[in-house]
Amino acid sequence: MTTTARPQSATPRPSFDLPAYLAASTAAVNRALDRFLPSETTKPATIHKAMRYSLFAGGKRLRPALCLAAAEACGGRITPALPLACAVECIHTYSLIHDDLPAMDNDDYRRGKPTNHKVFGEGIAVLAGDALLTQAFEIAAQAQGWPRYPHRALVLEVAKAAGSLQLIAGQVADLEGEGKRISAEELRYIHERKTSALLCCSVRLGGMSANGTPAQLKALTAFGYHVGLAFQIIDDILDVTQTSEQLGKTAGKDAKAQKATYPSIVGLEKSRAIAQRLTAKAFAALKPFRGKAVALEALAQFLLVREK
Amino acid sequence: MTTTARPQSATPRPSFDLPAYLAASTAAVNRALDRFLPSETTKPATIHKAMRYSLFAGGKRLRPALCLAAAEACGGRITPALPLACAVECIHTYSLIHDDLPAMDNDDYRRGKPTNHKVFGEGIAVLAGDALLTQAFEIAAQAQGWPRYPHRALVLEVAKAAGSLQLIAGQVADLEGEGKRISAEELRYIHERKTSALLCCSVRLGGMSANGTPAQLKALTAFGYHVGLAFQIIDDILDVTQTSEQLGKTAGKDAKAQKATYPSIVGLEKSRAIAQRLTAKAFAALKPFRGKAVALEALAQFLLVREK
Repeated sequence: MTTTARPQSATPRPSFDLPAYLAASTAAVNRALDRFLPSETTKPATIHKAMRYSLFAGGKRLRPALCLAAAEACGGRITPALPLACAVECIHTYSLIHDDLPAMDNDDYRRGKPTNHKVFGEGIAVLAGDALLTQAFEIAAQAQGWPRYPHRALVLEVAKAAGSLQLIAGQVADLEGEGKRISAEELRYIHERKTSALLCCSVRLGGMSANGTPAQLKALTAFGYHVGLAFQIIDDILDVTQTSEQLGKTAGKDAKAQKATYPSIVGLEKSRAIAQRLTAKAFAALKPFRGKAVALEALAQFLLVREK
Repeated sequence: MTTTARPQSATPRPSFDLPAYLAASTAAVNRALDRFLPSETTKPATIHKAMRYSLFAGGKRLRPALCLAAAEACGGRITPALPLACAVECIHTYSLIHDDLPAMDNDDYRRGKPTNHKVFGEGIAVLAGDALLTQAFEIAAQAQGWPRYPHRALVLEVAKAAGSLQLIAGQVADLEGEGKRISAEELRYIHERKTSALLCCSVRLGGMSANGTPAQLKALTAFGYHVGLAFQIIDDILDVTQTSEQLGKTAGKDAKAQKATYPSIVGLEKSRAIAQRLTAKAFAALKPFRGKAVALEALAQFLLVREK
């Protein structure tokens, strides 16, 4: 494998074995999550069963993988990044549990399984989401800081990405946008918050855990931002083009909920072109790593061509 | 005012002006909360309106007052304790918003006003609770640590008190206990988690912000624990003896939901005696402060004799 800078294209480095990388990072993250979370029999068992049900429902662990890959790109090891990767996954899972509630997207299936509230009831599902959100900060509090990235900076990074100006803002705008005609700019506002914020946070936390330079953090921020936007557009495309069985969750629900999406505003082909352009920008952002960000490159490419 | 140790009784120090103390601490906390939270017009306005609606609904600010009073008891000032006091109040408010949801206690009134979901709808109420919980950590991340209580210890203190083994555990056990006959031990398990955990956390954080000694922290822990148990018993008594108008929230709802309470298990008179005994224990715990914990004493006494 060469260490020269990558050309600014969305072609993956053929020598990088992404499935093996994802399998290894998923295994490490799953082991760490299992360690961080109370067991299913810890009293009150219901809440810990409910938390673990959604956390171990077969999620792709993309955000943790991005976090670990960012740490490696900055020359760090994965151990110091693991608590942060787990915190981000807890935030992601909590947001899915709450989004699936009848008062929100009202979804019965997620990752091919009944959603949390279908199994445990709405009350416990609300509490399981609350508990995972709280757990995320308990886990993040166990990460090590650096003089450049003191502990408070790590907690603040998670809180800001998950807060009312980012992740929750995206959810609110998404909820309020249903059935309305919204502009492409407004849709980008939603995607930036609903998806980019946490992806950006994932790679930035990875970089911070490795004591990355300000230039590296800046590069990771741009990478996360563009990958996040591309990721959400692909999600919207798959919602139109794939079946529920292929996705493991209800397909066609955006159209049913009259949600604005890139496919509904600019059409499928143009949406694909935009996602490709965004991924190319994400690749370009990795230039300062001079070929050391192979896992991040492969992940970005994978997110673009994925079928579920 | 003397500085000798208080006798182990639940009689208030007559010279201490608690109404003035509460008015001053509430004003300081309200100003700080207003500074920490995004304004009502910050996009998306709905979520910030909803967060502020419940946060500024006229809560008694008892937890923040306990936090500030604990800091003072340890010889500290209130400024370093303020972010932590605000974080605890955000946690408390989030838990009320989620508890009031139809899937939980299904309450229409709180502090004399329609509950969050009655005004903003269930979806936004879930998100407003999520946002306040997240905001709590963003605010806590801005507090200063000490070598003895590094920043991570403060965040961990909040996360543990609010997590699935404490606050949320109490909520789950409360939800699951409805309509069942439960023992006095099980009821104490619920009260310890539903109420004592966050009260304990409030005074401990205050002590930590003032760089309190381990002995002081131990005393505050015992104080918070006993005050919390007394507080919840009084709450249950008021639910039986007061009207909805007096309480500003639905009275008699414990009986209606077939919730086990001290009055339902041991009767009103014995419940009052237990609350008095617990308050006396809380007073006794303050002995190491040698008369410097006057505000904490007055607060404990006030919580025992309050009528709403």
